[in-house]
Amino acid sequence: MARIVILGAGVMGSALSVPAAASANNQVTLVGSPLDDALIDAVQNDRAHPTLQATIPDAVHAIKLSELDSNTLTIADIIVIGVSSPGIEWVAQLINQAGAEPALLGLVTKGLVPNPDTSQAPLTYADALPQLIPSAARHLVGIGGPCIARELALGIPTRVVFASRDMQYANHMQAALETDYYRITTRSNIVAVEACAALKNFFCIGVSAMLSAYPLDNSHAKNPVAALFNQAVLELLILSRWIVYSEAGLHSDNEAAFDLAGMGDLHVTVGGGRNSRLGSYLGRGRRLQDIIATDMAGVTVEGVDTGRRLAPGFRAACDSGKLSLAELPLTNAILRSVEQDTLFEFDFSTLPG
Amino acid sequence: MARIVILGAGVMGSALSVPAAASANNQVTLVGSPLDDALIDAVQNDRAHPTLQATIPDAVHAIKLSELDSNTLTIADIIVIGVSSPGIEWVAQLINQAGAEPALLGLVTKGLVPNPDTSQAPLTYADALPQLIPSAARHLVGIGGPCIARELALGIPTRVVFASRDMQYANHMQAALETDYYRITTRSNIVAVEACAALKNFFCIGVSAMLSAYPLDNSHAKNPVAALFNQAVLELLILSRWIVYSEAGLHSDNEAAFDLAGMGDLHVTVGGGRNSRLGSYLGRGRRLQDIIATDMAGVTVEGVDTGRRLAPGFRAACDSGKLSLAELPLTNAILRSVEQDTLFEFDFSTLPG
Repeated sequence: MARIVILGAGVMGSALSVPAAASANNQVTLVGSPLDDALIDAVQNDRAHPTLQATIPDAVHAIKLSELDSNTLTIADIIVIGVSSPGIEWVAQLINQAGAEPALLGLVTKGLVPNPDTSQAPLTYADALPQLIPSAARHLVGIGGPCIARELALGIPTRVVFASRDMQYANHMQAALETDYYRITTRSNIVAVEACAALKNFFCIGVSAMLSAYPLDNSHAKNPVAALFNQAVLELLILSRWIVYSEAGLHSDNEAAFDLAGMGDLHVTVGGGRNSRLGSYLGRGRRLQDIIATDMAGVTVEGVDTGRRLAPGFRAACDSGKLSLAELPLTNAILRSVEQDTLFEFDFSTLPG
Repeated sequence: MARIVILGAGVMGSALSVPAAASANNQVTLVGSPLDDALIDAVQNDRAHPTLQATIPDAVHAIKLSELDSNTLTIADIIVIGVSSPGIEWVAQLINQAGAEPALLGLVTKGLVPNPDTSQAPLTYADALPQLIPSAARHLVGIGGPCIARELALGIPTRVVFASRDMQYANHMQAALETDYYRITTRSNIVAVEACAALKNFFCIGVSAMLSAYPLDNSHAKNPVAALFNQAVLELLILSRWIVYSEAGLHSDNEAAFDLAGMGDLHVTVGGGRNSRLGSYLGRGRRLQDIIATDMAGVTVEGVDTGRRLAPGFRAACDSGKLSLAELPLTNAILRSVEQDTLFEFDFSTLPG
């Protein structure tokens, strides 16, 4: 039996409770963040999760933060961090205060962390999280890959990657969570997986701009989308190699960009979600500051945050020759729109030959 | 100045005449195949190409086969083979009879060619074409990448790859055809490019089945599409490496699957065209024989032909251990539907861990 606690009752944390509770051997607790009381009320009332638009199984013990006994955390075999990046501090405090040291710590949260040395590559949570949660140092399992939360909660076939520095942790978590519809592949390249999982939101913005920039026949032209999807994956490879090298000191693993956490997740992200929505506005010739002041006011767009964390190290690496700007025209174009509020008018002649 | 002759006035050959004629330095002749008389009549009448649904520029000299002077072929600097694979014999006869030896021979045609030794990998046109057209032996340039013909003809940004064994030929053809919207990257891995360009049609069938197999909210679930898109690219890599090794005797170049001719072209192909349409029918639980006898009667589906040419060598290679069936579950599932008329019920638990 595995005692599984999921921290954060947003869409992804809640969706993960569905396969987690599929095995009668698991005991699953879904804990709302301080912002999730209304969601937990709804689930406790009739099992319907309002934002997920799916049913949470009876077997999932869904509770508010105020209902959490710290003992639940200390006896947990698996704790899954199910919040988005602004919630990481809250989760760290909760785990640290409880003195919890779970056998496995799963990470759904995606994002880059500023490097204290701004001339260097940003960090991923694979490196940054152990500083916030010391017990995460060894047992961290990053979760990536193409997974729309609602589809997972509805039991639609979904394939993801679990990554840990030591494969045994990813394999153990796979054993606890895999079902016939939640298919898990395991990898040891957690830094590359985390880098790709964060950066795909950033690249989604640029690719999605092509969903609106060339309207055709009541839809949109597809050649520009495919061209920039292809370029995005190639740049994802270059940037993830750079981050892996910076963190791990070697090009240990180059596959993530061409696998579920990179190419696969970018595929599902373009056309759905907030990053894609922002990109579509940019493709219509609007500027970021205008968009986030009006149509997307108050909406967190993770790709924008990722871009801002990427920018200082990226510029420094291009200046020092560690990265070649000529190979990264899409990164450059998205960063200019994000940082300098320029129009996103992608010039196809800047693509490398 | 380049004298360019495009053989075949179907959508792709005709679309290519648009960037070709963009330079005043080029002299472009578009020659209809024996089946294209009505298309050429229409273009000669008002420049509107009926199936391309786009305008052919006045600068393009569009003629019927009966209007072709064999001198036009012998003085051509570039001949582009713009037919689909059933037209290859016709093109070969035309070029050989004229004794044409153009400086460059471009190839739009995509497909695999049966290997006389059925226990071996199928051939690509990179190897098979010089047997049909001896003058193609040295100067062949394969054209791949995500390119919907109509979008190219409308001047929408499109990025493709030109590949030749000796890069100078691809580079020369790029110099003659590139425009601000027709962006060309050049490569030396022509066998891998041709293998991917053919196989992407085959994989499109399986990925597109996911467009209909999991309906959701008046559209379809996206996780299964992304999962099989990802898997298709990984299997494309394995199969193209196998074909490259078989033809070239070495794993010379592995990039094509992760570049425009593979991932990029698969991206644009899923959701449009005949291969995708067939896949969508399969995803609804119908069988191939039923589909091609009814809704798609008389329609050539290139991915099916590609699958049939792939099958004998694929089975032999799996039996002999050259290929691992466990790594190729999508190939296997599509082949079973194509060859044995089984339902395409993809079992996600067969995906490698």
